[in-house]
Amino acid sequence: MERVRVALLGCGSVGSQVAVALAPGSESVAELSARAGVAIELVGIAVRDASAPREGVDGVLDRALLTADADALVTRADVVVELVGGLEPARSLLLRAFEHGASAVTGNKALLAAHGRELHAAADAAGVDLYFEAAVAGAIPIIRPLRESLAGDRVERVLGIVNGTTNYVLDQMDSRGETFDAAVARAQELGFAEADPTADVDGWDAAAKAAILATLAFHTPVTIDDVHREGIRSVSAEDVAAAREAGAVVKLLAVAERTTGVDDAGNEVEGVQARVHPVLLSREHPLASVRGAYNAVFVEAAGAGDLMFYGQGAGGRPTASAVLGDLVTLARHRQDGSQGPRVLGHADLPVLPTDAVRTRYQVRLVVADRPGVLAAVAQVFAAHGVSIETVRQRPSAGAVAGEGGSASLVVVTHTAADAALAGCVADLSELDAVASVASVLRVEGDS
Amino acid sequence: MERVRVALLGCGSVGSQVAVALAPGSESVAELSARAGVAIELVGIAVRDASAPREGVDGVLDRALLTADADALVTRADVVVELVGGLEPARSLLLRAFEHGASAVTGNKALLAAHGRELHAAADAAGVDLYFEAAVAGAIPIIRPLRESLAGDRVERVLGIVNGTTNYVLDQMDSRGETFDAAVARAQELGFAEADPTADVDGWDAAAKAAILATLAFHTPVTIDDVHREGIRSVSAEDVAAAREAGAVVKLLAVAERTTGVDDAGNEVEGVQARVHPVLLSREHPLASVRGAYNAVFVEAAGAGDLMFYGQGAGGRPTASAVLGDLVTLARHRQDGSQGPRVLGHADLPVLPTDAVRTRYQVRLVVADRPGVLAAVAQVFAAHGVSIETVRQRPSAGAVAGEGGSASLVVVTHTAADAALAGCVADLSELDAVASVASVLRVEGDS
Repeated sequence: MERVRVALLGCGSVGSQVAVALAPGSESVAELSARAGVAIELVGIAVRDASAPREGVDGVLDRALLTADADALVTRADVVVELVGGLEPARSLLLRAFEHGASAVTGNKALLAAHGRELHAAADAAGVDLYFEAAVAGAIPIIRPLRESLAGDRVERVLGIVNGTTNYVLDQMDSRGETFDAAVARAQELGFAEADPTADVDGWDAAAKAAILATLAFHTPVTIDDVHREGIRSVSAEDVAAAREAGAVVKLLAVAERTTGVDDAGNEVEGVQARVHPVLLSREHPLASVRGAYNAVFVEAAGAGDLMFYGQGAGGRPTASAVLGDLVTLARHRQDGSQGPRVLGHADLPVLPTDAVRTRYQVRLVVADRPGVLAAVAQVFAAHGVSIETVRQRPSAGAVAGEGGSASLVVVTHTAADAALAGCVADLSELDAVASVASVLRVEGDS
Repeated sequence: MERVRVALLGCGSVGSQVAVALAPGSESVAELSARAGVAIELVGIAVRDASAPREGVDGVLDRALLTADADALVTRADVVVELVGGLEPARSLLLRAFEHGASAVTGNKALLAAHGRELHAAADAAGVDLYFEAAVAGAIPIIRPLRESLAGDRVERVLGIVNGTTNYVLDQMDSRGETFDAAVARAQELGFAEADPTADVDGWDAAAKAAILATLAFHTPVTIDDVHREGIRSVSAEDVAAAREAGAVVKLLAVAERTTGVDDAGNEVEGVQARVHPVLLSREHPLASVRGAYNAVFVEAAGAGDLMFYGQGAGGRPTASAVLGDLVTLARHRQDGSQGPRVLGHADLPVLPTDAVRTRYQVRLVVADRPGVLAAVAQVFAAHGVSIETVRQRPSAGAVAGEGGSASLVVVTHTAADAALAGCVADLSELDAVASVASVLRVEGDS
């Protein structure tokens, strides 16, 4: 093979960076070709409107490379770089590329989280590669470490801060004491949040990434429908302030783990679970210091122990770095006729239902400050089979301990099922001594 | 290929973990084989004394696998795993393996830092792989990210905490206010430091890793002889305490960077530099929070921005995880006849001489507390062409500002050459107003 023909689908913030790096005759494409060991040639860029002006690209690239006919373009390529996003036509274009014997690079998390199994199977059947480093945590190398570096290990759990918008919002609430609404407004002003922040704040984006991380970590196909998902709208300024006082932070985590649960038939099984929800995390945990819009992925493996990967999770240039890294690898694979390791295949663990989530909880209660309250509260937890790890009690602001005012009671539980905890909370609200259940938050890491 | 024959050289703390994972008939070797897509078969373990009892291995592996004849064993393998350490016979055994067409995995940093160019060239010439994830930062995936994930990017700088012993010692000095000697003694008690800690505290171990990181990051052969090396013996409890007060920590960093310098002929050239020395680092820097014996590598790349990789840098199990990850990849490569990307070849930047190190500095002076001292001090820096970034002045403990006692003057410079700084320090000591130059430390990150 004298050259590897590359088709670029999409020319937005990431695509235009990739296009410029691959500009024919440029120093950058010469460098990338040298690293790949074969000439990389950009043969076309598919866009919706091939005649529209394109900032950053016009003047750098020959406009004749632009085409509105993506279908035709993919049949002329050895490697297709898909950066159009969304499910269709991205899915059909990738399948078409594989049919024509092309490998593909994609940064499309939504597509992988919905149709990953079909796409990986199609690539395997065609004997080509599908690489996707850019789909999770932007520039941070996490896909390749999970897929290759840890191939000799057993991953037990993956915890990720994989959505920069929500991390920025929670960080503002923590460091400036802002409310959720104010922090979202600031994020929107600074371009860290969309005008409609639903995909981020309700956890959809993180859930897609959780599905991809779980699929890789456990060699088991997991889709976004398998992911238990809770966003951060319910996190109050009081929750964050209380966490801060207790030496903790609130973070939105994507979690993928090996665990045991109850399957649809009611049997206890070992399997895989993926979930996204806000958690209380001790400030001693390495993920707690991930500030602003940064991302990080924490991996717990049987042999390697704890690992963390940290960096920028979004942005045109960082994401293009991940895409180009994959492209160099796939060009090399085309040249020597090889393929990367299979994503799916040798393992296929049961994916546990999303209603079987078990985590530790922190329940914050406002209670009457009088003897016997703790015993009554503890009794409710015991009745629901929820075991208590720690209890912290202190008078509410302005009140004096034991003098009949109200007090704050913070209970951290051992691992409990959602249903048991929900029953517990319902019964606690009924207790005379409990004025209110101020908050219920999941807990990760040491408390 | 129906099976990949693996020869293990060495059966110490890492080797015995690898041996057990590869035990014929075990679940673990079946899992590794499934991931590699080919049966992995351990054909022998070379040890110095094949008849000595081996804890952890006896009872798990057939003793017939043990042999004292490493030379013969490597000729019977498709992949050789070298874990004997040291330069010889490790080097000769690897060259012999390549001659016989075998690929190799090694965790031998000293060997790679001394003979990397020869070994990579020999592997390339034989059309086989040499993988070495375990050689730097134990279980942390850093080699593969630099070699593959960042292949589409331009790495500008790598900063690594790559020696757990010195990080533990400096962390004890910081968190407990211990002296260097007391912290080393504690590290020895806990098994974090050798009885003779020279290789760690004088920076030899970190320098070997700096050479390997520089080689990979810049596609340019760098040996340990090219690395400027300073250990941590000169770091005093006072330095660490002063850093703490100023919101900084002292860390031993391995640094590999693209920079300009003056070559042997006196010309200004762009090139590569690798160095190991203690630095002052702001507590805001992600590397500052790497505590105890943990390792982390911070990468600054043009596209990806700042990345950090964090985890356990040593220990039998973590290091074995890195070795086994490489082994799975190489078994797969044997099966499909492919090879990983070349380490050397397309770039070959000048390696700048070790006496041309340029960093920022913090100079801490004890001075007379009277008007005009700062002017005199600033004049000395100016005379040596060293530009000052910040100055902090305050009375010494017990003294009152402006009342003729002594004061502490802390000067942070912009980037300066070692020679200019040394001249500066010599002249400062001569000043009447300067009682002493209390410390001179290099500075990395924002001050």
